[in-house]
Amino acid sequence: MATPSFDDAARYLRELEEFLRIPSISSDAAHRGDVRAAAEWLADRLAWAGGRVVETDGHPIVLGEWLERPGSPTILVYGHYDVQPPGDEAEWDSPPFEPTVRDGRIYARGATDDKGPLLVPLTVAQAFLEQHGSLPLNVRFLIEGEEEVGSRSLRAFLRSHRDELAADLVVSADGAMWRPTEPSIPIASKGLIALDITLTGPSSDLHSGRHGGAVQNPLHALARILSSLHDADGKVAVAGFYDDVVPLTELEGESLDRVPFDEEAYRREVGVPALYGEPGFTTLERLWTRPTLEVNGVSGGGWFTVIPRIARARLSCRLVPDQRPEAILDAIREHVLASCPAGVEAAVDTEPGAVPAYAIPPDHPGVQAALRALHKVYPDNEPLLVRIGGTLPAATLFEEILDVKTLLFSFSTADEHLHAPNEFFRLDRMHDGMRAWAELWHVLAGIAPPGLRVR
Amino acid sequence: MATPSFDDAARYLRELEEFLRIPSISSDAAHRGDVRAAAEWLADRLAWAGGRVVETDGHPIVLGEWLERPGSPTILVYGHYDVQPPGDEAEWDSPPFEPTVRDGRIYARGATDDKGPLLVPLTVAQAFLEQHGSLPLNVRFLIEGEEEVGSRSLRAFLRSHRDELAADLVVSADGAMWRPTEPSIPIASKGLIALDITLTGPSSDLHSGRHGGAVQNPLHALARILSSLHDADGKVAVAGFYDDVVPLTELEGESLDRVPFDEEAYRREVGVPALYGEPGFTTLERLWTRPTLEVNGVSGGGWFTVIPRIARARLSCRLVPDQRPEAILDAIREHVLASCPAGVEAAVDTEPGAVPAYAIPPDHPGVQAALRALHKVYPDNEPLLVRIGGTLPAATLFEEILDVKTLLFSFSTADEHLHAPNEFFRLDRMHDGMRAWAELWHVLAGIAPPGLRVR
Repeated sequence: MATPSFDDAARYLRELEEFLRIPSISSDAAHRGDVRAAAEWLADRLAWAGGRVVETDGHPIVLGEWLERPGSPTILVYGHYDVQPPGDEAEWDSPPFEPTVRDGRIYARGATDDKGPLLVPLTVAQAFLEQHGSLPLNVRFLIEGEEEVGSRSLRAFLRSHRDELAADLVVSADGAMWRPTEPSIPIASKGLIALDITLTGPSSDLHSGRHGGAVQNPLHALARILSSLHDADGKVAVAGFYDDVVPLTELEGESLDRVPFDEEAYRREVGVPALYGEPGFTTLERLWTRPTLEVNGVSGGGWFTVIPRIARARLSCRLVPDQRPEAILDAIREHVLASCPAGVEAAVDTEPGAVPAYAIPPDHPGVQAALRALHKVYPDNEPLLVRIGGTLPAATLFEEILDVKTLLFSFSTADEHLHAPNEFFRLDRMHDGMRAWAELWHVLAGIAPPGLRVR
Repeated sequence: MATPSFDDAARYLRELEEFLRIPSISSDAAHRGDVRAAAEWLADRLAWAGGRVVETDGHPIVLGEWLERPGSPTILVYGHYDVQPPGDEAEWDSPPFEPTVRDGRIYARGATDDKGPLLVPLTVAQAFLEQHGSLPLNVRFLIEGEEEVGSRSLRAFLRSHRDELAADLVVSADGAMWRPTEPSIPIASKGLIALDITLTGPSSDLHSGRHGGAVQNPLHALARILSSLHDADGKVAVAGFYDDVVPLTELEGESLDRVPFDEEAYRREVGVPALYGEPGFTTLERLWTRPTLEVNGVSGGGWFTVIPRIARARLSCRLVPDQRPEAILDAIREHVLASCPAGVEAAVDTEPGAVPAYAIPPDHPGVQAALRALHKVYPDNEPLLVRIGGTLPAATLFEEILDVKTLLFSFSTADEHLHAPNEFFRLDRMHDGMRAWAELWHVLAGIAPPGLRVR
């Protein structure tokens, strides 16, 4: 079966604009109806695959499947139809829900995250059907409406629909290439845990003249605890923090070494006087392969001469394989309680929603298939294997519940203002994406089912 | 000359109520007219002493004098007629500017700070005049309207009115006895300096997943700096901080030892799990005789997973004799800049209004006179010499510009809710105060002028 042609750019643009006009903001109860409208729009578009809107405890999930190639592998295409709120509309050059094309880019909330990239595999499937009468492999679709609110119904849904979702590999239309000039596949993302430290001292704020020197100041105690979390070089000093970190495989190390990274350009980009981090690692290694512990916020007292009653800090960690979120939370809790000075009481509260790290090996047949597909579309640019500092809760859940790996194959790019004003998607990436997904399906179709299920 | 009698309680109460009804809130521009009305009310009351309202750059100062005893000492009576804002009026049991007597206490904003205590010497002077036709010594009055806003016009006023204010001793009607059951004279107050630390890292808040581990987090750097300000025992670790602290004299040590202090009761009062402070000192010594450095506020970041761009802390120190505010500020600035980790930039900004510590020796003739006067009124209670953790900017200015010591002789008590809702003044203290001030003037009248000018 030949690759279909994707020449009807006007039609694809019209469909994307229609989808982008629906303000499917999952975090805003006032848009509940719009979220459902987006789900129904998608189900209509998947009518050829039995597209349907399925209820959850939250926003619905859209399912569909085309399984007419027995003996061929089955992939599960994942994406999401919900979007972030637009924020301050005054900061947008064109209204967030009136998609506007300028300089080969389409501007709208959701353009790159994830409506544009999501329409790519849907369009590819339809083109195969229209032009060749069938797909090269079996395809299921799972499109959720809660990615922007932590995929909170996804775990229960996967558990209760396990059979309906059986597949050899998830291919996600969510995610992003790291730079517009270099095609790339993300092979790892970090995990995330967060916790709050609360130190309580006196029963009310005390006048620092009347009481200073006689009681432990919760802010002093907090500074002592927080400064004990790292050594002077920036390495995390919590006992056991690095214990379960697995070293990169030789192949992972090689693919990392191939990624060009200009430290001075990065320093200018983030605007710091000097880069800083765990000794013995390059900046890119620190960013992509090392777990981190960051204090995200501290508050206590004010600008009066008081000894405050209470001091608080929010901490979060970005985890790497094979760190276990619960074990790291326990280690930090123990460290904080053990290093709390006399005279104040410490409480450590874990935030819900811990997510472990996710990784797919660079030699996984799905990744290798993706590299071949990218090479076809970008013959002059060797694709890079990159990593993501953020989290992919869905990929973790697919592995845990469906027992399959997830290949991230998105044609979004990290610079396209996702979650910010003037979000956009490059229209040439949409076209590249269609060609690449078609190529990917051809390659995957040639891998007999057990081959894609390796871990 | 005999001591006058103070039997006309109804008249004194009526006058105090009249004064308390004027909402002379110096920090509130909307009450500028009320502040002036309070000044005029006082000038009227001092008509017999040439009472007059004198302009400053801020709220006016009331002056008056009776100097008809050449050869006798001259005292300058100090007090203030401005008050704090009432705060949330819902927290008051009776309206803050409708003075109400309950259980021998008068409740109103300003009752104890400082309108009640201030009327004591005015009433005493008037009683001497009415009952004996003259005062036992020369008296000047200086009553300011900006004590609650940092006495900001006082320095310039003292400089430009030095001759009009010449005296052998200032006797202040502001201040407070430390407990209702034990008559006391404060002989020292702490100084105050304040400064802000600002640490700046990246040019904007960074996503902690995308950038964590590669840049110095301003909150980590701040924790490291703040925790370096004290050693693990709570002693200030800034080089030179204690260099100029003078040890207590033998007499000061003895008067401190005579002050009963129940550490366990104090611990319960402030509500801490355990007391804490500089090793080698009792809690009372820490509170009254040792300089302190407290972090009053910290802010930076929030509850999102960011590395914040900026982190801030407010610090203040309570100083003792003979610490020089400028030298301590310099030492802290140097410490902060030297201990700032790589990767962030530190700025240290000094808050205006540094005040050095103030002290009057326990064997000063003014203090000895005050002890004799208190003994007459409270024959069964040996008066204590106590210390104040707060600041007395006015006493410092009187010493610096007028070259005289200040005796604090207030009949306010520290528990009378000053600066808080339901401020009150004990009416029996008002009566005690009149008798004590009359006694004090008798004793001071017997000390020939150079005797009161010792330092």
